[in-house]
Amino acid sequence: MAEDELETVVLEEDDYALDSTLFTAVRIAVAAGDKERLGELLEPLHSADIADFLEQVDSAHRREILFLAGNKIDGDVLSELDEVLREEVIEFLPKEVLDEAVRELETDDVVDLVEDLEDEQQEAILDALEDADRVAVEQALTYPEFSAGRLMQREVVAAPEHWLVGDAIDYLRETEEDLPEQFYHVFVVDPKMAPLGYVTLGKLLSAKRSTPLSDLFEDSFRTIPVLQDEEDVAYAFNQYHLISAPVVDDGGRLIGMITIDDAMGVLDEEHEEDILRLAGVGESSLSDRVIETTKQRFPWLAVNLVTAILASLVIAQFEETIAQFVALAVLMPIVASMGGNAGTQSLTVAVRAIATKDLSPSNVWRVVRREALVGLTNGVIFAVVMGVIGVLWFGTPMLGVVIGVAMVVNLVVAGLAGILIPVALERFGIDPALASGAFVTTVTDVVGFFAFLALAGAVLL
Amino acid sequence: MAEDELETVVLEEDDYALDSTLFTAVRIAVAAGDKERLGELLEPLHSADIADFLEQVDSAHRREILFLAGNKIDGDVLSELDEVLREEVIEFLPKEVLDEAVRELETDDVVDLVEDLEDEQQEAILDALEDADRVAVEQALTYPEFSAGRLMQREVVAAPEHWLVGDAIDYLRETEEDLPEQFYHVFVVDPKMAPLGYVTLGKLLSAKRSTPLSDLFEDSFRTIPVLQDEEDVAYAFNQYHLISAPVVDDGGRLIGMITIDDAMGVLDEEHEEDILRLAGVGESSLSDRVIETTKQRFPWLAVNLVTAILASLVIAQFEETIAQFVALAVLMPIVASMGGNAGTQSLTVAVRAIATKDLSPSNVWRVVRREALVGLTNGVIFAVVMGVIGVLWFGTPMLGVVIGVAMVVNLVVAGLAGILIPVALERFGIDPALASGAFVTTVTDVVGFFAFLALAGAVLL
Repeated sequence: MAEDELETVVLEEDDYALDSTLFTAVRIAVAAGDKERLGELLEPLHSADIADFLEQVDSAHRREILFLAGNKIDGDVLSELDEVLREEVIEFLPKEVLDEAVRELETDDVVDLVEDLEDEQQEAILDALEDADRVAVEQALTYPEFSAGRLMQREVVAAPEHWLVGDAIDYLRETEEDLPEQFYHVFVVDPKMAPLGYVTLGKLLSAKRSTPLSDLFEDSFRTIPVLQDEEDVAYAFNQYHLISAPVVDDGGRLIGMITIDDAMGVLDEEHEEDILRLAGVGESSLSDRVIETTKQRFPWLAVNLVTAILASLVIAQFEETIAQFVALAVLMPIVASMGGNAGTQSLTVAVRAIATKDLSPSNVWRVVRREALVGLTNGVIFAVVMGVIGVLWFGTPMLGVVIGVAMVVNLVVAGLAGILIPVALERFGIDPALASGAFVTTVTDVVGFFAFLALAGAVLL
Repeated sequence: MAEDELETVVLEEDDYALDSTLFTAVRIAVAAGDKERLGELLEPLHSADIADFLEQVDSAHRREILFLAGNKIDGDVLSELDEVLREEVIEFLPKEVLDEAVRELETDDVVDLVEDLEDEQQEAILDALEDADRVAVEQALTYPEFSAGRLMQREVVAAPEHWLVGDAIDYLRETEEDLPEQFYHVFVVDPKMAPLGYVTLGKLLSAKRSTPLSDLFEDSFRTIPVLQDEEDVAYAFNQYHLISAPVVDDGGRLIGMITIDDAMGVLDEEHEEDILRLAGVGESSLSDRVIETTKQRFPWLAVNLVTAILASLVIAQFEETIAQFVALAVLMPIVASMGGNAGTQSLTVAVRAIATKDLSPSNVWRVVRREALVGLTNGVIFAVVMGVIGVLWFGTPMLGVVIGVAMVVNLVVAGLAGILIPVALERFGIDPALASGAFVTTVTDVVGFFAFLALAGAVLL
């Protein structure tokens, strides 16, 4: 591919993945120490794509790129970077580049940037800010992590309740310079600064100047308490189709605004957390190194070792039975495995329903009953299938009966454990995505092995 | 709790979950046949909450509620309902209520409402529409499912490139009635209707009337091809912080608009799909009945039965070894279980990275190497731990060595399978979230049992 073709093919059009020719072209430019060419290659990229690019190369290559093209790393790129990489990149950037990058960000983005940094780096970034911005960022940092207060921007457009459309338009024209970079509503407040409603800019533009703002209020209006968990903020935006919402303090006074793009980011992160936690992986990224990744994976594997040993202790009780009838050792993993899978199915549905607030005290018993019946139905079907296979394979009719009965028992238990364990964890304030898997598979392993081996011992010997 | 207290406590303030007192109050009102009271209870609820409420009650109760308060079910409630329930509710609603509900919806919401309905119901709803709307909906339905064309609304505000701010404002004032209900940008187009850029309403409001629109273009501007997969649309909105984006046809002409709230809904659905598919559950909802749920869970359990039998066939090769040394039967599930967990960890990280486009040909081999090394490191640690336990438990030093070596082998294989299998499935156009789990655990079961038993047979006997 010719060099000038390369320049245009930076993103695969259909699916936004970074084109592999870009990686090659950057590697060539870096090898040649060609600063200008490297700049040309990165220039057309969105800051989010530059961040992704830096995440996808290895750390030595990343340093070379930063060395040659550090000036392409602006505040937006820093914001988009994974936390782990962010620290690395900040450490590597020259002070003047970093200072300029930080100064061009809105305060809510600075908060997002610094909140997970270590004290020293945080201090360096705060020092780069103008006094007013620094105060704003420091105040935001006084709100708890993952609260609406950390997510909001302080710049809002507020209007007193007696204003007409004309007043609002004149005000917007006058304060042009100081308006938030992105805003979609004018918030109408009472004299105590409590939000009363909001007007979309579209309505403002199309209504007559003499219309009172309060005639144009939207139904979708909702306020967000500053201490609300960001997960609930994201839920509210998605559930009620909000575009922006005023944030209020304890006294109900307007102190900021959250916009849907930030809420969408939170929704995405929360999902990532759930999906990784369900698989027993901590917060992680592809750019993590071996040692970090090993550490993230270790705890759940350790828990799993304990539960696997627990299951083995159950098997050990039946050593004599197995010694007399080795077919049991061959078949017993099937019962445990089917239970584990059925349990994982139930628990995933339950964890997801808890996250979307669809599982409540009013319907939990109905769902429990359903899971038990589903377990029973599938249990009976697979019991028959597996019973027949057991008989054909080993030629012992009673073995078929034993594995069939054990299968039914374990699938019913799996259904029950899959719903009851996450619900119980949620009641105790533990994230059900985090811990349910370990408990559920322990239950299905123990019950599966016990039901099968105990029954076999009683019937076959 | 007194009756008038009930009226206000409809949502638990902190977390938006429906209050259980509401369920009680509705039950009382329905039992008394008190239509008015039921109306009072549902009135303050957002349509999304009414939909959730209907999803959380059982089907007999739902019919009673619909019978008494069918008039509270407007188009928005229908839009928010789960697909399965939507069919049930539509069937139950009187024709005039349904017709009115449908007529008040925007055309993109009607598309969303009817696209999964059966022909007969779809026809009934299309019949309720005015001719122009019906044509619009039917045209949207000609685009493939899950494409940008299904997601977009046709109502947009477009301006010719030579317009000034004043022209745009005058135009908006004049066309007040026909403006889209929600819009955030004015799209500027060339004479062939190709979008050139867009201007936020905030800029339009605060700029001078004499400013050319083209001076106010935003950097964030991106067009969406009408046939783009909705998953990629959601990705673009999240990655590039879009609020609205013009949709263009093959010829690059503006034919509609997608807004971030719809993209956020898609992001949420895609996540739900991934998380459920990873657990081997099809599209499902808590309001599904036992028979539907059983059917959704069945296929993955059937696949799992086959893979479990495959693993058992491996064990069966070593029946004699086990018969002579029953401790092997006790310990072998530990090796398989640890491999299964490590594999699930790797594959979940890989599936997620594929979804976020962070895993590309440029870094896949680095990630493969990392996963293998992580497997090796954790493998060695757990090999030592389990080796010691094995020796202490059964008093046979070589048994400790055997389980240790098998553990290392299986954890390395788990790491490799966890990344290579989803990547390979993706290459073949199969959703890695859907099928990876079955393959990965088959590999770790087979390798785990084989490595442990074969080694034991060679060393211990």
